[in-house]
Order: sequence, then structure tokens, then C-alpha cells
Amino acid sequence: MARLIDIAQQAGVSEATVSRVLNGRAGVHEATRQNVLDVARRLGRGALPGDRSAEPLVGVLVPDLDNQVFTAWAERIEAELFERGASALVALRARTAEREREILQRFLQIGAEAIIVISGHHAQQQGPVDHYREVTAAGVPLVLVNGVREDLDAAFLSTDDEHAVRAVLVHLQDLGHRRVGLAVGDEHTWPVREKLRVFEDVTASWDEEPQPVAFTDFSYAGGYEAARDLVERGVTAIVCGSDVMAAGALEGIRSLGREVPGDVSVVGYDDVFWASLTNPPLTTVRQAVGSIARAAVRTALGGGEESRRPARTEVVVRPQLVVRGSTAAAPGAAASMDR
Amino acid sequence: MARLIDIAQQAGVSEATVSRVLNGRAGVHEATRQNVLDVARRLGRGALPGDRSAEPLVGVLVPDLDNQVFTAWAERIEAELFERGASALVALRARTAEREREILQRFLQIGAEAIIVISGHHAQQQGPVDHYREVTAAGVPLVLVNGVREDLDAAFLSTDDEHAVRAVLVHLQDLGHRRVGLAVGDEHTWPVREKLRVFEDVTASWDEEPQPVAFTDFSYAGGYEAARDLVERGVTAIVCGSDVMAAGALEGIRSLGREVPGDVSVVGYDDVFWASLTNPPLTTVRQAVGSIARAAVRTALGGGEESRRPARTEVVVRPQLVVRGSTAAAPGAAASMDR
Repeated sequence: MARLIDIAQQAGVSEATVSRVLNGRAGVHEATRQNVLDVARRLGRGALPGDRSAEPLVGVLVPDLDNQVFTAWAERIEAELFERGASALVALRARTAEREREILQRFLQIGAEAIIVISGHHAQQQGPVDHYREVTAAGVPLVLVNGVREDLDAAFLSTDDEHAVRAVLVHLQDLGHRRVGLAVGDEHTWPVREKLRVFEDVTASWDEEPQPVAFTDFSYAGGYEAARDLVERGVTAIVCGSDVMAAGALEGIRSLGREVPGDVSVVGYDDVFWASLTNPPLTTVRQAVGSIARAAVRTALGGGEESRRPARTEVVVRPQLVVRGSTAAAPGAAASMDR
Repeated sequence: MARLIDIAQQAGVSEATVSRVLNGRAGVHEATRQNVLDVARRLGRGALPGDRSAEPLVGVLVPDLDNQVFTAWAERIEAELFERGASALVALRARTAEREREILQRFLQIGAEAIIVISGHHAQQQGPVDHYREVTAAGVPLVLVNGVREDLDAAFLSTDDEHAVRAVLVHLQDLGHRRVGLAVGDEHTWPVREKLRVFEDVTASWDEEPQPVAFTDFSYAGGYEAARDLVERGVTAIVCGSDVMAAGALEGIRSLGREVPGDVSVVGYDDVFWASLTNPPLTTVRQAVGSIARAAVRTALGGGEESRRPARTEVVVRPQLVVRGSTAAAPGAAASMDR
């Protein structure tokens, strides 16, 4: 760290002036103040009071950007932070819990005021959480999006998967579908377990046999594979865990010579930008990205010293079913549409 | 910053051991080493030698994530850095040059080894560049993607727009199109000026009248508006500056009761994930994101002390035309297809 005298010499002012500027006191001409800050910054003085580049910094960790819904999270969170005079630094893809820990430590080292983690290892059923405790122990607010753990004093924000899956299944039932498949990724993650629980609960009364489920992964290839599997198990509709999977499902269904939605209906999840552009456009679940981003930032930045002490909170935000062209009446069930 | 003695006391070891660990020397049991690093990290010792969280950090600035091609850049750059044992912190959306400067300063403050800026203010015709000089003056390598400035000692990487626009126009000419429109964003940006220059150059010989150009913005709405304008000016094909614009163009053309590609052909730019999923799938220009990301990271991390001195370099990477369903023979030009 540069000494006051170094900065004073380079800036051509007194040490007292440098001290006034660095301590954010008034009574220094603006041009002088800017000059001192410039020199101090150049000499590596670190965070500077009264310096706009020293605005509060929030670390944001997203799992990957392949799924555009994570991009949308990062984008909205940055916009919310900017409106509140804070800025975001985003890290991507904590491939392992150890890597996630390194990233969180990095955020602490660079002085993050708060950390927001989207679909992190907290969403794994057995994922270690000690590295999250290091964050809360340091007094830094921690906001975990998608995935709830009972054993952490963090703020949890998630989409109401129960509401979403129920709304999708009611929609498909209204269209006469009685054999519906669920296509999701790793069953050990929180969002998959939530969706599976509700799916099994709702469809239990439909038939003696349970409705089929395909566990692949949240990718285009995963959707393609799951759809082929589920179609061969006789479904007339497929509920996918993401729009990316749903896009893959469209191709998987066609690869078997079936039509969407004539033979098989497809429902996505997320409502990413391109969900309305596919052929046919995807019926999907619109996550309330804006609401959750706003809540995440409000929680992260808190309302003052008092509220900055980490405490466990849990907020669930209700998503919305968006009906487009990829769902239609089940084959032979057209009559039930006429009612 | 914590003193050695504080760390030693908390970790239950001697100050000499702490010193050995922090200076990355051998001869300390691994469990002890980890424990000391943990304590040091918790006490805020900052970057730690031999500590994997102290791996080289590269700051990456992307303009926004609405256009998925920027997401793809960030994603590939992170992957390349990870392979080389480095990590990325990503900042979004430098809305103004002043904001861009703050972000670059933040990267310097947190000890970034290098900075990669994608489509930054350097891509503006009149954009200020002094804040880039502050980075190079600090001896930190600066890599600027998309957009070339003569007056900066940075590494410039960009897509060969000339090659791309020529390939697109040859394709459309082969399909019998003689009245082609260009739909792009702000004409004061480098990628737009490049595309415009080549477009005018190639089409100059087609007709006495220049081919029409619509300047809107690189968004869905921008593509929609530009397409309606260009169709009313009699074009049979539209070359868009991005896939997002092309998606908007598909809707704009249909809103006038015309078909794609029967009445009007559409070409995108970028080949984002969903470009093959639209109806019809987009003919587009595939940016060599992987090659450019690799080159950016290689340049950023350099090959050793010697090569880390910033020097002006310029690399242009050739993109590829991907022909899909959104382009077809011009109306009445079917004969030329049969040759």
C-alpha cells in the first residue's frame, strides 16, 4: 500500500490534503480531489472513500451460462445493484465444492459486501456447506438462490416449483393427457427433488402405474435423450426441467417420426428469451427472475448495520405458466377440448 | 491485515511455521499447511502463496448478456482460463466510458493479472481511450475483443467481418437476390462500420441505386423495425447484424403478411445456441468464439515476464457461413437455382 507521502509527492499536494481526500472530508477542490484519487488508485491504495469506484461490491456466483436463465439472473441482479449504487463481479461455474469455496474466499478477499450464489452446491442434496459458513462467520450476508438447506444462516430465495408443476399438470390434464413424462437432470439436486415430489404427488391419483420419469441432464442432449425414452414409454406429453431440455425434446420426438404438439405435447421451464421463437413456440413456466433478483439484492445490501447480521430467511416466489404452441389436446382426446 | 502471531495463535503453530506456509516453502505437513491457510484466509491475510485461491485472476468485461454471443464469450474465456489454472471475474455492462473506467480500476485494485474487454467503448468511433491507457501504463496486459483502435498498445482480437459479409452476399447472389437490405445497430460502432463498408463495396456493382440500409439497434425490436422498413423498400433478403435482430426480422416480415424464406430471406450473425431452433432455422455467420477466446486468454496470460509487456497486436479470426432454412431462392429467380 502506498504511503501518504508518496501520493502527496506524485499529486503535487500536501500530505494533509491527501489525508483529507482519502478520509472523504470536504474542503478540497474537486479537481485536486480527483487528481489525488487518481494517483492513489494508480499507486494501489485500494478502496478509497468518496471514490465512486469504491462503491459496494457484491460477488455473484452463477453455475454456468449455457442455460440462458442463469444469464438472466446475473443480468437482472447487476441491474438491481447498479440502481442501488453498487456493482457486481460475477464468477462462473464452481465445478466442485472446493472450487466454490475458492471463489467465495476470493470474494471475501476483494472485500465483497455480500455474496449471492445461484444454484450452487447448496442445491446438492449431500453438498458440503462449511464453506458457506465461512462467509456468514465473516459477517458477510449470503443469499442462496434456488435450493434450501435447513442448516445454514443464509437468505434463501427460490421459485415456487410446487405451484409451477401443479399448474403445468392441470394444464395438461385439461388437454386430456393421462400419460405424462417428467424429464429432469440429476435427481440429487434440490430443484429436481422438488419437481419430482410434486409430480408424483399430483399424478398419483391418475393411474395405478406411476407416470414415467427420465433423469438425464439439463442440456439439449439431455432433453433429446429423455424425450425418446419417454415417448417409447407411451407418454403423450413431456414436462421438462428447462427450456434447453424442451428444445432437445422437440428434436428427440421428431427423430421418432412424431409431431409436436399433434402426437406429443412439450412443456419447458424458465421462459428464456428464445422460448417463444422455437417451432412450435414453447409452453413454459416463466420464472419471476425480476422479483427474485430484486429480493436478492435487497437482502444482500440490507437496510443498515443492524440488519447486516446474517439471519436465516426463506422467500419463495411464484412463477407463471405461459401457454404457447407446444401443447395441445392429447391424441384422441379432442372431445374433452370442446367442453 | 493479520499479523503472523495472530495466525500462529489461532492455528496453534509457531510463527516460523506460519511464515513457511505463507511464503510457500516446503517442509510443512499438508494438514498443518491447510489449517494455517484457512486461518490466514479467515483473518483476511489477502492473497496467499501456495494457496490455490491465489491463482491468477483475469478481469473480463462484457457489454451485456442479452445477446447470447457475449455470454458465449464469457463462458469460453472462463473455460480457457480454468484450463490454465487461472480464474475469471466478470463485470457487466459499462453503460458509459466513465463506468467502464471504474470497472477497469476495480480490476486493477483486486490484482487482476490481465484484463479482457469485449465490445467495450473502444468499439465506439469517438469513444475515449485514456482509461485503457491507465491499464497498460500499470503494466497489465489488455486484450480488446471486437473493435480496433490505432492509438492503443493493446492486443486486438476480432472476427473477420469482411470475410463474413462477402460470404453472405455471395450466398444471396447465388440464390438470385438482387435487392438486399442490411439491418444493423448504431453506425458509430466499429463492427457496424466494418459491415457497412464491405456491404457497400460488394453491392456497388449490383445496381445503379445503392442497396438499402436500416440503422436501428442490436435487439429483437430493432430487427423487427428494420425488417419492416427494408421490406417496404422492396428487398427480397435482409442481412442482420445479430441473430437477435434476425429473430425480430422474422416477426417483422410476417407482420407484413410475407413469408420467410418464400418472399424474403433472412441472414443472422453470431450463430447463438438457439439460431438453429427458430422457425425457419437461421442461416447465419458462426463467430469463431472458441478460437478467439483461446487467443484472448493466451495473450492475456502471456508466456512469461518478457512477453507480459503490453505491445500492440492485432488478430483477425475468420468466421463461417452456416446455411439453414431462412434463406432460399429470390421470388421469380428459381431458374437460377437449377443451374
